[in-house]
Amino acid sequence: MSTAIPSVPAATSPSATVHIDLGERSYDITIAAGLLADPASFDGLPRAAVAVIVTNTTVEPLYGQRLRDCLAGRFPAIHTVVLPDGEDHKDWNTLNTVFDALAAHGCDRKSVLFALGGGVIGDMTGFAAACFMRGIPFVQVPTTLLAQVDSSVGGKTAVNHPAGKNLLGAFYQPLQVVCDLSTLATLPPREMSAGLAEIIKYGPIHDMDFLAWIETNLEALRAGDTAALAHAVRRSCEIKAEVVGADEREAGLRAILNFGHTFGHAIEAGVGFGVWLHGEAVGCGMVMAATLSQRLGLVDAAFVARLRTLVERAGLPVVAPRIDAADNEGRYLELMRGDKKSEGGEIRFVLIDGPGRAVVRPAPDALVRSVIADCCAAG
Amino acid sequence: MSTAIPSVPAATSPSATVHIDLGERSYDITIAAGLLADPASFDGLPRAAVAVIVTNTTVEPLYGQRLRDCLAGRFPAIHTVVLPDGEDHKDWNTLNTVFDALAAHGCDRKSVLFALGGGVIGDMTGFAAACFMRGIPFVQVPTTLLAQVDSSVGGKTAVNHPAGKNLLGAFYQPLQVVCDLSTLATLPPREMSAGLAEIIKYGPIHDMDFLAWIETNLEALRAGDTAALAHAVRRSCEIKAEVVGADEREAGLRAILNFGHTFGHAIEAGVGFGVWLHGEAVGCGMVMAATLSQRLGLVDAAFVARLRTLVERAGLPVVAPRIDAADNEGRYLELMRGDKKSEGGEIRFVLIDGPGRAVVRPAPDALVRSVIADCCAAG
Repeated sequence: MSTAIPSVPAATSPSATVHIDLGERSYDITIAAGLLADPASFDGLPRAAVAVIVTNTTVEPLYGQRLRDCLAGRFPAIHTVVLPDGEDHKDWNTLNTVFDALAAHGCDRKSVLFALGGGVIGDMTGFAAACFMRGIPFVQVPTTLLAQVDSSVGGKTAVNHPAGKNLLGAFYQPLQVVCDLSTLATLPPREMSAGLAEIIKYGPIHDMDFLAWIETNLEALRAGDTAALAHAVRRSCEIKAEVVGADEREAGLRAILNFGHTFGHAIEAGVGFGVWLHGEAVGCGMVMAATLSQRLGLVDAAFVARLRTLVERAGLPVVAPRIDAADNEGRYLELMRGDKKSEGGEIRFVLIDGPGRAVVRPAPDALVRSVIADCCAAG
Repeated sequence: MSTAIPSVPAATSPSATVHIDLGERSYDITIAAGLLADPASFDGLPRAAVAVIVTNTTVEPLYGQRLRDCLAGRFPAIHTVVLPDGEDHKDWNTLNTVFDALAAHGCDRKSVLFALGGGVIGDMTGFAAACFMRGIPFVQVPTTLLAQVDSSVGGKTAVNHPAGKNLLGAFYQPLQVVCDLSTLATLPPREMSAGLAEIIKYGPIHDMDFLAWIETNLEALRAGDTAALAHAVRRSCEIKAEVVGADEREAGLRAILNFGHTFGHAIEAGVGFGVWLHGEAVGCGMVMAATLSQRLGLVDAAFVARLRTLVERAGLPVVAPRIDAADNEGRYLELMRGDKKSEGGEIRFVLIDGPGRAVVRPAPDALVRSVIADCCAAG
């Protein structure tokens, strides 16, 4: 079908809006290429005297000015807080530097924070917004694939503590999530792969048709094809929206979104935060969780092999690291017992209860140990 | 009337339960003498593997063991975190020591925190509970009059920041508030007076009959009469419950509970946190806010004089301190502009719009300056 050339650049690519339904805390995720080239992307926001962009040293030179240009007509004062890049700065002290900046810039309860960056920036900015004056508005502008499909959606905010990843945080929803697919063009391949892990995740836990679509379109996704990315981001956000809408505060169902994360968090903590990317640990963790599901008789070996193949094709590790020379399995168990989902020292695993369906349950230590031993690199 | 001696010590005094209606976040405030002598006071709580009592060096030797005895049958492990006493420790760093303790004691999402102490302990413990693992249950056990009638009720939690009192915090509701009136027996007279300020507050903003009752019963309250205290705590909690139930997150109505607090916070910050007790600053701040209300034509001079007399009778200061030798009024205005209730640099005063009725509105700088000048000690 032949049509006139659209006048708005953002509309030249596939675009979508996913609605997160949480009553008075509802909001939209807008997904398209070029959103940061168009001030209209932020038309739904309230006006305020001050906007503060929180970003990092990597993203600021790439997209800081573009976002400031978008916001210039809406906020008389726009300040930018540039944090050091990386998971090892996602802590209590860095969070405090954000508060110092907000106070120094005279922010009030109507000031709007913008999280411009990946998952670390989004988690920290959201937590800062949750705490400052007991809660001020914030907007997620995720610039990594992982943040666009997972961490920027659903209102989980946090910083790490030496005793555990994301140990301190809040459930706090943004006003809006703006996913500009164009920002993925500058994303290093390793981080694209990390984002694919969270996309793949939605298949085994909820939608095997989507898993099949990913298998078919994996090369297009890794090559940064906008149409493929638009579909993957939208479908991921739709599934997340459905789960979060049913269980905002992780009383039950929402925990299935942590498929691969229990083993994954142990990997991240075991090798030291920042050595493995979160998505890499989740990718490997999914293979481990699927293996545990198989040993419990929930799925067959073909399912595990299929998932393992896809994770590997996505450029993600499928062999877990050894994290303790003397007692590798024991160290994994110890770290998993410290996970937020543990209760009374019992680890709650997200397992696959048949393809496309997740279940949260404990598992015998001996079985978990055998899975760790078999999934880890030779000692 | 002659009756048999009751078998339960707690029942020898007047007791009451006030319900805070906030949907799924609803809870009860129980008010009686002797509640910490009776494990049944905590019967409504969920069971969990770990309870952590957060208290301070003053309260721990007085009531720590009593609370542990109450909880011993319900929680297999009970830990106590003893913080230094005082407003100047209500900060980000002290909060982090609480997190370190929770992590060290292996707390999980079901662990229950108990805030045993005054407003500082309640605010910090509540904020810690709000943040740890994105929210774990907590119980308020206020041991000061101020905490029993105000800070332990309504879910405002916070720590201070150099740029402002309670600048960082969360709205986070407790599971229960247990007000043991017996704990007030050990409260220093100065802190009793500070608590009376928050009790008096409920009169001008909502209930002039209650104000008249306070005028009649002030000596009994100051002397620690249990029946008088029971009525004052109950009525204060009832009014607060009504206001908080209508506006949990301070979108509008709830701000009236800050009558006296805008001037009061400027006093606290101006002389240095901890020099004036919060209640002392609020007492003096109410006189200033009433004076401003009069100058705006909202109440008459007799009303201001009546309030001033009662505040003074309660043992509270009614003359404001000078906080800047060169520009005292300017410094007050500067501090009030940094208040959380300010918007775009405009100070929102809680004023009395006729006896028993509060209103939140701005006021001309010149008028505010004249009130400050007239209410402050001679330079």
